[in-house]
Amino acid sequence: MTEQDFAPFMREAIALAEQGRWKACPNPTVGAVLLRDGQIVARGWHHEAGQDHAEVDCLKDAAAHGVNPKGCTLVVTLEPCNHQGKTPPCTQAILDAGVSRVVMGLADPNPLAAGGAARLREAGVEVLGPVCETECRDLVADFLVWQSTDRPYLILKMAATLDGRIATRNGHSQWITCEASRREVQDLRAGLGLCGGAVLVGGGTFRADNPLLTARGGCADAPQPLACLLTSRLPKPDADFHLLKERPEQTVFLASPAVAASTAAQALRQIGARVLALGPGPHGGPDFREMFRALRQDLGCPYVLCEGGGRLALALLEAGFVDEFRLHLAPLVLGDNEARPLFAGRAPQSLSEALRLRISRTSLCGDDIHILLRPLAADDAGQGE
Amino acid sequence: MTEQDFAPFMREAIALAEQGRWKACPNPTVGAVLLRDGQIVARGWHHEAGQDHAEVDCLKDAAAHGVNPKGCTLVVTLEPCNHQGKTPPCTQAILDAGVSRVVMGLADPNPLAAGGAARLREAGVEVLGPVCETECRDLVADFLVWQSTDRPYLILKMAATLDGRIATRNGHSQWITCEASRREVQDLRAGLGLCGGAVLVGGGTFRADNPLLTARGGCADAPQPLACLLTSRLPKPDADFHLLKERPEQTVFLASPAVAASTAAQALRQIGARVLALGPGPHGGPDFREMFRALRQDLGCPYVLCEGGGRLALALLEAGFVDEFRLHLAPLVLGDNEARPLFAGRAPQSLSEALRLRISRTSLCGDDIHILLRPLAADDAGQGE
Repeated sequence: MTEQDFAPFMREAIALAEQGRWKACPNPTVGAVLLRDGQIVARGWHHEAGQDHAEVDCLKDAAAHGVNPKGCTLVVTLEPCNHQGKTPPCTQAILDAGVSRVVMGLADPNPLAAGGAARLREAGVEVLGPVCETECRDLVADFLVWQSTDRPYLILKMAATLDGRIATRNGHSQWITCEASRREVQDLRAGLGLCGGAVLVGGGTFRADNPLLTARGGCADAPQPLACLLTSRLPKPDADFHLLKERPEQTVFLASPAVAASTAAQALRQIGARVLALGPGPHGGPDFREMFRALRQDLGCPYVLCEGGGRLALALLEAGFVDEFRLHLAPLVLGDNEARPLFAGRAPQSLSEALRLRISRTSLCGDDIHILLRPLAADDAGQGE
Repeated sequence: MTEQDFAPFMREAIALAEQGRWKACPNPTVGAVLLRDGQIVARGWHHEAGQDHAEVDCLKDAAAHGVNPKGCTLVVTLEPCNHQGKTPPCTQAILDAGVSRVVMGLADPNPLAAGGAARLREAGVEVLGPVCETECRDLVADFLVWQSTDRPYLILKMAATLDGRIATRNGHSQWITCEASRREVQDLRAGLGLCGGAVLVGGGTFRADNPLLTARGGCADAPQPLACLLTSRLPKPDADFHLLKERPEQTVFLASPAVAASTAAQALRQIGARVLALGPGPHGGPDFREMFRALRQDLGCPYVLCEGGGRLALALLEAGFVDEFRLHLAPLVLGDNEARPLFAGRAPQSLSEALRLRISRTSLCGDDIHILLRPLAADDAGQGE
């Protein structure tokens, strides 16, 4: 078999790895399959931080099914680790199991954990790869941001019509996307709740939509993501906002130093909300870098999901902070240039001034299409820093 | 095997059928595979009008490979015909070959050719289906239009950024999409050239872009599609337009009766161009129904490809004449509400007034994503009539 023959198995390992998303944090999501004679005989993934790595989980799955891994091929999305962390090195487990070949998707970018491939080769194991390297790097794009920056991994989610509109001219936006798309956003928020992430919206969206920003439909005591509001003015604590009524302790206002020192801020703090001061950034507007540092370092958010509005979203895209842009397009045409646009505020004179992304994945979801975009250069995790 | 187990084979048959696109016209594109023990042992499709139907082509492929079709399963995208046309009925060929099971994608909508399934069942053949019915109906959407209306099958193609812009605010649009996308448009025009189809643009696009509307890069004597220009005013015959300089005989102006009777029209006719008169439609604007009737009945166009501009495209969408909307989205963001929009001119107050389509297929093409949309109801081929 050539390296490329392992691509379908690597994709299966990637799909397994995705099952550990949110819970694996702050570790990378990793998946693995064990092959004998070109057939998958065991599967594994990193279920949760502190638990077995994917390789060991896969070997345990083999044991549970009475499969002897001796002479088998292990296909794993990330280079097996070679260091003693919360769990012993995977390289040792692979050698102990007698696996004769390892196909890896991506070399480990963590210098502490790297060296696994070399260790395996020294011990006589054939090591192939990288296979499906871009997909495997995209799989751990969050981990790469955590490793190389002091900010959270930023997901931007926007919903629009085919002609790029997020609402009619009079603001009617419920619902552009189908039920399945909206359920997926709920699942995303639930994932953020699990790992202590945050949902971020701009002040305009906060005031216009009065959102709760929770994952609904799950069990009642499921952890919810923090609600972060980037705003130039603060509401009164008894104003009729769902966030203030229902979960002020999970609400974080990000405002200018003057606003954060105001009596309005004090009043909000008294009902349990947080108000953080945010100085101006290098190009005017709020200091995103400082905002994200605070969200990650002070509030412990590994992920931030920005759900708009368009002005905040575009500012984040322009500043290079968007690690993943999930665009949900509904098969609708409004055909109205006065309808609210996905993005506005720039004035490029030529196409060379357009912001350029890379399509990482597309999928159909109910009636809609979901397009997942990423920054252009695959190794640009530090972009925006 | 259940009916659904045949879906992957039906998709293979659909892919084969696509190879006959343009040349099969005015027949439907049909594909077939022959299975023995769950493996494909022969393949066929309707290559060209007047040649073998897909079933017979597939049985000949079996013979060429020394495969005896007796006891095999034939998977075919459309119900085998039961009538003597330019070729003998496929049902007889299937019975003669001893095929024991036929899996069909779609019942034949042509009453003249229908009855194939019943004939086969009477003769003891097991007939299953429909399998992948929507895909198989989409495969012959052109044929369904030809059968049920007097107009051509209309393909609308538009290229835009992620945020629904077709050009910067000052009209810069070269190039939004990647080279692979542009090549696909050339291939589409080449297909139209093969079957006597036409490319249609509005007068604004004609004057702004000065297009040639040909398929370039093929052999020099390849037939080219007609160039149709829907316009309120006519150019002088010696004006600096590529179409007038290079192929006036293949250029058709569609204008109001007054304009079509003007001396300007006479001058264009003298260099070989055609100028057709088009009365007003029921809702103002040109009479699309009459335009399409003329294109199909008088000029013999089975397909029309509309490439814009946005105003014409939206009018066609609104009037329900678009059978297939190919939207090529480039992973670019302009972020400028003054940039030229994909569509404009409507003023819906609520989302219920949005034009609603159905996503039929999506594919990646180079850096871009191609979304193929169709009218909502699958049996709405007569929409716009």
